[in-house]
Amino acid sequence: MNHSQRPPKPIGAAVPAPADASPADLDPTDWEAFRAESHRALDAMIDHLATLRERPVWREPSAEARERFRRPLPAEGQGLSAALEDFERFIQPYANGNIHPLFMGWAQGAGTPVGMIAEMLAAGLNSNCGGRNHIALDVERQIAAWMAEAFGFPLDASGVFVTGTSIANFLSLLVAREHALGEKNVRKNGLKALEEQLVAYASREAHNCVRQAMELAGLGARHLRLIESDGSHSLRIDELKRAIAEDRAAGLHPFLVVGTAGAVDTGAIDDLDALADIAKAEDLWFHIDGAFGALAVLSPALKPLVKGLERADSIAFDFHKWLHVPYDAGFFLVRDPEAHRRAFAANAAYLTRAPRGLAAGEIWPCDLGADLSRGFRALKTWFTIEVFGARRLGACIEKSCALAQRLRGHIEASQTFEMRAPVALNVVCFGVKDDDESGRLNREIVMELHESGEAAPSLTLLDGHPTIRAAIFNHRTRETDIDDFMQMLERAAQRARGEPPLAPLPTPREEGEPLSQD
Amino acid sequence: MNHSQRPPKPIGAAVPAPADASPADLDPTDWEAFRAESHRALDAMIDHLATLRERPVWREPSAEARERFRRPLPAEGQGLSAALEDFERFIQPYANGNIHPLFMGWAQGAGTPVGMIAEMLAAGLNSNCGGRNHIALDVERQIAAWMAEAFGFPLDASGVFVTGTSIANFLSLLVAREHALGEKNVRKNGLKALEEQLVAYASREAHNCVRQAMELAGLGARHLRLIESDGSHSLRIDELKRAIAEDRAAGLHPFLVVGTAGAVDTGAIDDLDALADIAKAEDLWFHIDGAFGALAVLSPALKPLVKGLERADSIAFDFHKWLHVPYDAGFFLVRDPEAHRRAFAANAAYLTRAPRGLAAGEIWPCDLGADLSRGFRALKTWFTIEVFGARRLGACIEKSCALAQRLRGHIEASQTFEMRAPVALNVVCFGVKDDDESGRLNREIVMELHESGEAAPSLTLLDGHPTIRAAIFNHRTRETDIDDFMQMLERAAQRARGEPPLAPLPTPREEGEPLSQD
Repeated sequence: MNHSQRPPKPIGAAVPAPADASPADLDPTDWEAFRAESHRALDAMIDHLATLRERPVWREPSAEARERFRRPLPAEGQGLSAALEDFERFIQPYANGNIHPLFMGWAQGAGTPVGMIAEMLAAGLNSNCGGRNHIALDVERQIAAWMAEAFGFPLDASGVFVTGTSIANFLSLLVAREHALGEKNVRKNGLKALEEQLVAYASREAHNCVRQAMELAGLGARHLRLIESDGSHSLRIDELKRAIAEDRAAGLHPFLVVGTAGAVDTGAIDDLDALADIAKAEDLWFHIDGAFGALAVLSPALKPLVKGLERADSIAFDFHKWLHVPYDAGFFLVRDPEAHRRAFAANAAYLTRAPRGLAAGEIWPCDLGADLSRGFRALKTWFTIEVFGARRLGACIEKSCALAQRLRGHIEASQTFEMRAPVALNVVCFGVKDDDESGRLNREIVMELHESGEAAPSLTLLDGHPTIRAAIFNHRTRETDIDDFMQMLERAAQRARGEPPLAPLPTPREEGEPLSQD
Repeated sequence: MNHSQRPPKPIGAAVPAPADASPADLDPTDWEAFRAESHRALDAMIDHLATLRERPVWREPSAEARERFRRPLPAEGQGLSAALEDFERFIQPYANGNIHPLFMGWAQGAGTPVGMIAEMLAAGLNSNCGGRNHIALDVERQIAAWMAEAFGFPLDASGVFVTGTSIANFLSLLVAREHALGEKNVRKNGLKALEEQLVAYASREAHNCVRQAMELAGLGARHLRLIESDGSHSLRIDELKRAIAEDRAAGLHPFLVVGTAGAVDTGAIDDLDALADIAKAEDLWFHIDGAFGALAVLSPALKPLVKGLERADSIAFDFHKWLHVPYDAGFFLVRDPEAHRRAFAANAAYLTRAPRGLAAGEIWPCDLGADLSRGFRALKTWFTIEVFGARRLGACIEKSCALAQRLRGHIEASQTFEMRAPVALNVVCFGVKDDDESGRLNREIVMELHESGEAAPSLTLLDGHPTIRAAIFNHRTRETDIDDFMQMLERAAQRARGEPPLAPLPTPREEGEPLSQD
């Protein structure tokens, strides 16, 4: 690596802890020393990213590292130099590992060096994107328009950045609630005053955050009907129809159906067109949890799999998963901008809007969600799409699905392992053929691979059985990684057979309860 | 400025849009070219921060800039070089302006160069901090322990990063709801099944997000009692007692009182000790919205103003305001970790926790809030506190309060302006002495200063009267800036008197409705 362009390491700290406690401000006392220090930090992180393959996927944080973060509040600062040294020594080696090409545990994106630079710029500008009249809001609207275009929504669809799909799914429930009950002024009066009990529907394979959204909103988790899935892990349409009819007969008020595009455990996709038909016939809000699967639209080859997406009332998804925007960057897109705004906008906010100046503007992001303080998530997303283009991003998505098929081929050819679910997109669920009911071998293999730092698959439960899951998101993962991973699995299985048995899993799974936390 | 340490600008783009659409990955094809490009971007942003004073606080985005963000989804990427050029041309000049020393419009922090570097490192690691066994969670727990120490909470208090206080206040309401109704399994059953209607209490000066939290949770905004405030804009304790008694007599269920430490309009602080007494006597959850005011504890001089904070059940506040951590970095701290966890943890999550490896660990952040995908907000916060130390950060907070008193002095000495509220902390509310009922002059002055780019105060309503508000948060603001600002105000008032009258404000303020959106 050519390091000749780097600035020399400075002698003193750029941001010293001053002797007196009345500093002019928190800017560097010596900008050139700060500049040199910053460049050193940037170089070190670029080196880290360029040499990922040389290091383990994951390492248990050392006792010394953990101890470093159990100190009292420091009265005096240690300056930037020392903090950067602590970072390199105690933080960088013990990260989550999802940037590594052999990480395939959960539905997590890998980030990109481009995204890192964009995030640095956003932090430099430090704009609060809750509202007002500045360009960050135009960039956010650009992302909404792009996604509307990609999903086949009207181009005036309304969108807002959130942390992730957990929050976006919660917002969808609030928009659906307002849509169903707007004339009853549910925002003002609350749920207890209502005559009817709202009920919602999703697949039993739906992510736990859909149930959580029912809790947060006060609707109650038990009023989410978790509908049986079929052999391909998609929601059973006949069961959905039956459940709606039963609830109507019982005097309940069906208001929302949540389709899943890319189930957390298996990557399965519900029949979105059939759900759209039912939602229309039954006058339900049709929301899609497309946390990762929605972005399959960027691949012409995969797009047919999410047919029906274009008919949803709203879609929740994450740019930090399959688009590798740095964490966090979730998004919530709503077909009808007025329905979106009605669920959140407050009269109070309008009064402060001025005809001119910084407080001007029509609709602010704070009218479209629960956040008022918000970072500039649109910037790293805009950079990602502008730098790489939709076609290349779609090609990376397609590649990870092809890698999943490659792994499926290996599993099917293995003497040791067998497949446990169809591969709908990029998630491969498999296990040891002769594992016992407790899933001892599967569990041991996963922990073994983590601890060795070789690879990071995850463990999930499918129909109650502990199952190994490889979720292939990382744009850095190659065919040779998949081939190596298969070898690692075989070796880990051999090692695991020599181990003493594990204690049983802590508690049995509750019926219909979604499991995974991605 | 010495630019000799900078790398030369590269000739080619570091991340080109490749001719073929099947790239190996989204890493640079040429790491050294990417390195040079990144250093250039870093240098440009450091230059921008080092020369803030040479530019206007704010500029209306140009038509060309707005047009740049109204394009179709690009199929092909333009590469990093071109995207960075677009950033410098169309985004950087038209930012929100809160990093500028003459920005004093809303309760917004100014960021720091140190925070920018930390955010870059966090984006490089790209850890998802929803859970699992990696060091980011230790850093987040360190921040919780530090804040527990600073606020006088037990050191095992439980904390979680969120976007901002809007979300933290919402979480507080959910913890309080669970605390009040846990045995009725409200998470599962919902609110409609309850016999009782929950009611909460806050000052009429409380931030709108407290009301919003009641809406989100399904409790209904009208079940938040907005209690009258006194001459110092603090909640009237006698009125609170009366309201609780009335509600109990009416068969309602008081469950939560929200104290305000640093009201959005005036910076006023409720009598937190008196609220703690009432909460104890009435068995209410005592939450404090300390969005900015809570961090006054870092100044020994200011700490007595927030006496009683240490008795709260939970506190919501933002590191991105008075601690200048880059957006966004809100925090929610709860005295009783078990009460915190009970409101959010799902059985589903536990099952995936392994005895060893990456999926190990006891309590994960996803057990303490609504997010599962979460960036590494703890890192920029840790850097800020480690680099500067609590004493220096407290001194900056103290300085901004001293500057507010300086501005008050100027206003009181002015022939043109008069004070409109006491200065409790760092917020100065004032207006033109002989303005009309519509507040024409005050409104015009604020817009005029925005448009000229000289300064950015804001307009708010106090007792229905349009009022100019200077919220002094920025660590870069100096005494000379305050003196200059006073001159700008006088000149703007003269100019405004020559202007034609404005149209009236769009709608009258609803009784007791909080106004400002910070």
